[in-house]
Amino acid sequence: MDLKDKLFRKLEDKKQDMIETRRFLHENPELSFEEHNTAKFIEDFYHDKDVKVTSNVGNGYGIIVEISGKGPGRVIGLRADFDALPIEEEADVPFKSKNEGVMHACGHDVHTAYMLHLGEALIELKEEWPGTIKLIHQHAEEVPPGGAKSIVESGMLDDLDEIYGIHIFPAFDTGTIALVPGNAMAGRSNFTLTIQGSGGHGAMPHTTRDALVAGSYFVTEAQTIVSRRMDPNDSVVVSITAFDAPGGFNVIQDKVVLRGTVRYLDEDNKEPAYEAMKKITRGIETSFDVECTLDYLYDYPVTYNHPRETQLVEDILKKSVGSYIDEITHPKPFSGSEDFSYYLEKIPGTFINIGARPEGMEDPYPNHHPKFLINEDSLLISAKTLGEIVLDRLKG
Amino acid sequence: MDLKDKLFRKLEDKKQDMIETRRFLHENPELSFEEHNTAKFIEDFYHDKDVKVTSNVGNGYGIIVEISGKGPGRVIGLRADFDALPIEEEADVPFKSKNEGVMHACGHDVHTAYMLHLGEALIELKEEWPGTIKLIHQHAEEVPPGGAKSIVESGMLDDLDEIYGIHIFPAFDTGTIALVPGNAMAGRSNFTLTIQGSGGHGAMPHTTRDALVAGSYFVTEAQTIVSRRMDPNDSVVVSITAFDAPGGFNVIQDKVVLRGTVRYLDEDNKEPAYEAMKKITRGIETSFDVECTLDYLYDYPVTYNHPRETQLVEDILKKSVGSYIDEITHPKPFSGSEDFSYYLEKIPGTFINIGARPEGMEDPYPNHHPKFLINEDSLLISAKTLGEIVLDRLKG
Amino acid sequence: MDLKDKLFRKLEDKKQDMIETRRFLHENPELSFEEHNTAKFIEDFYHDKDVKVTSNVGNGYGIIVEISGKGPGRVIGLRADFDALPIEEEADVPFKSKNEGVMHACGHDVHTAYMLHLGEALIELKEEWPGTIKLIHQHAEEVPPGGAKSIVESGMLDDLDEIYGIHIFPAFDTGTIALVPGNAMAGRSNFTLTIQGSGGHGAMPHTTRDALVAGSYFVTEAQTIVSRRMDPNDSVVVSITAFDAPGGFNVIQDKVVLRGTVRYLDEDNKEPAYEAMKKITRGIETSFDVECTLDYLYDYPVTYNHPRETQLVEDILKKSVGSYIDEITHPKPFSGSEDFSYYLEKIPGTFINIGARPEGMEDPYPNHHPKFLINEDSLLISAKTLGEIVLDRLKG
Amino acid sequence: MDLKDKLFRKLEDKKQDMIETRRFLHENPELSFEEHNTAKFIEDFYHDKDVKVTSNVGNGYGIIVEISGKGPGRVIGLRADFDALPIEEEADVPFKSKNEGVMHACGHDVHTAYMLHLGEALIELKEEWPGTIKLIHQHAEEVPPGGAKSIVESGMLDDLDEIYGIHIFPAFDTGTIALVPGNAMAGRSNFTLTIQGSGGHGAMPHTTRDALVAGSYFVTEAQTIVSRRMDPNDSVVVSITAFDAPGGFNVIQDKVVLRGTVRYLDEDNKEPAYEAMKKITRGIETSFDVECTLDYLYDYPVTYNHPRETQLVEDILKKSVGSYIDEITHPKPFSGSEDFSYYLEKIPGTFINIGARPEGMEDPYPNHHPKFLINEDSLLISAKTLGEIVLDRLKG
Repeated sequence: MDLKDKLFRKLEDKKQDMIETRRFLHENPELSFEEHNTAKFIEDFYHDKDVKVTSNVGNGYGIIVEISGKGPGRVIGLRADFDALPIEEEADVPFKSKNEGVMHACGHDVHTAYMLHLGEALIELKEEWPGTIKLIHQHAEEVPPGGAKSIVESGMLDDLDEIYGIHIFPAFDTGTIALVPGNAMAGRSNFTLTIQGSGGHGAMPHTTRDALVAGSYFVTEAQTIVSRRMDPNDSVVVSITAFDAPGGFNVIQDKVVLRGTVRYLDEDNKEPAYEAMKKITRGIETSFDVECTLDYLYDYPVTYNHPRETQLVEDILKKSVGSYIDEITHPKPFSGSEDFSYYLEKIPGTFINIGARPEGMEDPYPNHHPKFLINEDSLLISAKTLGEIVLDRLKG
Repeated sequence: MDLKDKLFRKLEDKKQDMIETRRFLHENPELSFEEHNTAKFIEDFYHDKDVKVTSNVGNGYGIIVEISGKGPGRVIGLRADFDALPIEEEADVPFKSKNEGVMHACGHDVHTAYMLHLGEALIELKEEWPGTIKLIHQHAEEVPPGGAKSIVESGMLDDLDEIYGIHIFPAFDTGTIALVPGNAMAGRSNFTLTIQGSGGHGAMPHTTRDALVAGSYFVTEAQTIVSRRMDPNDSVVVSITAFDAPGGFNVIQDKVVLRGTVRYLDEDNKEPAYEAMKKITRGIETSFDVECTLDYLYDYPVTYNHPRETQLVEDILKKSVGSYIDEITHPKPFSGSEDFSYYLEKIPGTFINIGARPEGMEDPYPNHHPKFLINEDSLLISAKTLGEIVLDRLKG
Repeated sequence: MDLKDKLFRKLEDKKQDMIETRRFLHENPELSFEEHNTAKFIEDFYHDKDVKVTSNVGNGYGIIVEISGKGPGRVIGLRADFDALPIEEEADVPFKSKNEGVMHACGHDVHTAYMLHLGEALIELKEEWPGTIKLIHQHAEEVPPGGAKSIVESGMLDDLDEIYGIHIFPAFDTGTIALVPGNAMAGRSNFTLTIQGSGGHGAMPHTTRDALVAGSYFVTEAQTIVSRRMDPNDSVVVSITAFDAPGGFNVIQDKVVLRGTVRYLDEDNKEPAYEAMKKITRGIETSFDVECTLDYLYDYPVTYNHPRETQLVEDILKKSVGSYIDEITHPKPFSGSEDFSYYLEKIPGTFINIGARPEGMEDPYPNHHPKFLINEDSLLISAKTLGEIVLDRLKG
Repeated sequence: MDLKDKLFRKLEDKKQDMIETRRFLHENPELSFEEHNTAKFIEDFYHDKDVKVTSNVGNGYGIIVEISGKGPGRVIGLRADFDALPIEEEADVPFKSKNEGVMHACGHDVHTAYMLHLGEALIELKEEWPGTIKLIHQHAEEVPPGGAKSIVESGMLDDLDEIYGIHIFPAFDTGTIALVPGNAMAGRSNFTLTIQGSGGHGAMPHTTRDALVAGSYFVTEAQTIVSRRMDPNDSVVVSITAFDAPGGFNVIQDKVVLRGTVRYLDEDNKEPAYEAMKKITRGIETSFDVECTLDYLYDYPVTYNHPRETQLVEDILKKSVGSYIDEITHPKPFSGSEDFSYYLEKIPGTFINIGARPEGMEDPYPNHHPKFLINEDSLLISAKTLGEIVLDRLKG
């Protein structure tokens, strides 16, 4: 029985443990940068194991678990994130979140659970593989600046030859693995636009400089960033996600605050989109005699899956199609963002999408939905997927 | 010495009392429909006087004080409102509001104070004038539906021959009386527009129906109500005073709420403005595939000063120009609204503007400003103004 | 029989002549600044009369006819304009325009016809009135810069004590005289906005700077001049009357031209409206990266009817109510413009509106309509109106 | 010497002829559907050759030239278009267009010239290759509905196994061949939107329903089709290319006409874009009380290069890299449209882009520019490219 088979048998034995670990994490979600108990749980898991655990890596509760194999070899990183979201769970499951207003609605409970037990199995087999595996239990993926950037900056991954990670998606069938070479997930800039006019009586607009009206025209002009100013072949999104101007019926507001996000699948669009928004903002200032303050943050970069490593992964996984994998697909890039992008800026690797559609559910709830549900078979699939990749790549 | 001179002498003697009463009220402001203590104070003032006091008139703490003269004659109403505003006072005065977040920033303390002492003087002289005076101490002018409408509906003013009221304005010089015959203050409709789209991920606008964008286009289209659809000779205002769509950076809102006000100096514009807004709202619904709910309330009507009574008042006051009055002016109508309009729908009369600019203050704070300040000489002027009007009209 | 009666009898005798003169002019309309034959016709009319005729006054075919009375006295001007419009007549009348595409659709044929015969009558009676009458037959009222300004600048009216003119309106009943004291007709600014972007292939917007899109946003922002920036009590109009961007389906335009007009009933709004448009234009330039050229012309000023002279006219005409006049009304100001305004900037006087609704026509065609029709009784009414005014004012 | 070498030697010998033919065509351009002389020229070219020429194919001057090889085999089509554009040439060349306002500014002269001489060479060698070649000299590519659709519908291409065509682009270096598998050029819908309001005096907007304003808001709303309603991963363009509302300064237009184009790289976006525009149009109708007529034409489909044939072409051409080809590139799809798409809807094949940048010209004029210039070396390159492809594919 070859090593992969041994690993797979171990993982199959641990399937129920994975599910229980996942349910425990699901019941006890913690917000980004506040994952004290989750980190404790992870550290405790490795307590009696022959690995080197480094805690509090980066700007939060990041944990790096180094497993040394039987001799020198490649150094491969595997990453799983563990923070939850500020969402009140509405899913009807027996292991529903016990933390009011906090929910694992993006599958990070799954990511962490499968990784812990995959790690456990790899440790049990560590005399049979060469090189080093670094498990990266990452905090704070959901909230910029995220944990990844700071973990990269810690220097602890400087020796990595390759890095891999996964994300589960109920939108894909359980058994489907989706690979996207090249630009795979969007880069993101977030902005806050404060428009300062001067308020006054609702009946006397001419004595005011109406910030709310200026803000509304801004929103209509901002549509032209995508519709007129970006190459139609490029994928760019500008969404205004907040227009903060509460008030009553009589008073013209003196200030409004807008917030929004800009997404792009090519870093080349990052600056032009900002330049376009600056132009529009300055034009609105002049047209409506208001003062605009545009706080614009270049956030998570485009997630670039290295084509070579993506192809290597595909070649490895192809052999399992028909066994635990039903199909390998190549979807369009996603407009969502991931701070896995920071690892891939420095280290070759790829980010893998694992299907997790609940059985019999035609139209599953998307990630971040309060009724988010997954198929727990995806835990074992995730473990096998990363498991066979890492073994193959260490062997090479 | 004629009756007017007697009254004026009495009022001059009471000037300091007026100021003290006004300062007490200023220190103890109460919000509309919650003026329990203010009403108590007013009732106590009349406690030992030979008048008929009716409390809790209309939909709140309204008080009507009936003073009977020496014999039959006209029945004249004088109105003073007594509610305050939800504003945190920033004026630097020794009698600053003691009620946090509540302030007499519209002069109703002045209105009530002068009226109490004018009433006192008129009571002292009641054997010298014929007919009946009804002092209307009105609650809740600031908040629709206001107190006036319900007081009119109480039937207690059905026997009024005429009605008069005043408002103080620091925008006019102290000593100036401003009269506007005909449509003098704007009618008002208030609206709430709820736009229901469907939200989603900020990176996937095509899976949403973006209510915030729809709302912004609504604001830009709403400008055409005034600019294109109303007779340029008419005075109409449409102000959007709230755009309630708070949020973060990533989530496209599924619902936004806008609020606003429509003003008109001619009741003929009331319905066309509403019709225009309905059209725009329905168009936005279709264009942006959202559901719009427009709650639209016809609020205070246009304040129509009866031309005959306004002229009568001018003829009466003209004789005092050079004594306590410096000037009678005829400004443009005001775009503000007043529920004194309800009285004037039923009863002949006029609403008089009394200057109250603080001495030496070039650019006084407008009504409703947290630093609102007045010249307390306006108390005596107000008392004399309404005093000589009522005596003259009872005599006639 | 007093002088007025004598004049009226003469005018009644000339009624049929007036109608014939009017029909001749109607059949032979000429465009502004091209009224060669019309001017010739007028000069010929006075050929054998004892008056001083000055031709080619001002910047065109203006004619001033000076009639000297029996001795010294006031100098009164009466003005009638004589140009026609570039409209193809569609009215079904036997004296339809013989000049293709040119039509007296604004009643200047009526103005000129009644004035000629009124002049004739006044000349016949000139030994019976003192002072001087100057008949001003004005060219080019319809096209800026108009004839009036240049006639004023000629100095030939410097000795005028007063000036009067009329306009007929089928919108008013025949027999109605409408007087508006103060600001009576709108001032006007016209503008041309050229937006220079850079064109290109319809499929590659990002390589262009789209002037058409910039122009459209300009139009939506321009609505806020009236809706947000002008006092709601003032009457201001901003109309975009041309958006000149013809083209096919494939080419993004590099340039668009917009034209429009701004009207105001108060000269105080002239500059603020221009300032607001400049701001919007500059904002559009910045927002859309285009170059805007705004050619903005302050055109005819507000027509200000001097209150004293308007009241004098009303007092004079009031006596004829019940005879040739049915009613004197006081409508709202008109948003149309008139270069009679230039006379009134220098000379006291008023501009009088004469009803001319065709009998039995409920909804008459407005001025400038290709089916414009009038009641020819308005000729005699106009002649009597101005006739009795001038006699009265000379006498005074 | 193998057949390809023979062909290449012949083509090299004909290089000067190609250039002369091209210059003649350039001097004598004809508009789409009016290419009478061009067609005559082409037919004359084949006059004495052993081929079957069919004229007037489809809805115009289309010509199909059938060359039969030495025995049975595949049937391969090669297409070259021959119409010119309504552009006044500004290029400074000795063979400048002699037809005023008409110009070969899109390289169809090049396409036709190389094809004629490639055909000549293939005819000379026809005893050495099997099967059949159909040269398709196509009229009217520039103007919908184009010539291709009708040629396909003629049935004359029903026996084709494969089809190939080229387009030259000065944007690519001479020597570069650009291949795009899959959706390669945009599909196109064109539309005309007529907005009927009701016009009137520029000073009386409230008596009108302002079509120009409605049209401007339409343009701003239309931006949201691309910015909000289409998948950001898809390439969709909506350009408004005409806003036809000429006029003066005083009259509010009663009707405006807009024109525009919609492009998409995926036929799946064709209908949703139309649906979105219909919604916006109907919303504008309601909001502005105007009548909208939207004439919307689904025009040229997406040009879909069959992946297999595109790969076959790449495999064939790869061998010539280093000789007459410098490089094979894979650019992004083009947002321009081509009626070659109609052939590819029925017949496997691919559309090949041939670089034609003039030597030393950094920033060459794009196709459709009045100064459009090409490198005439691209003629021989085009002939060799299609020549070796067709020989290889016939052999296979």
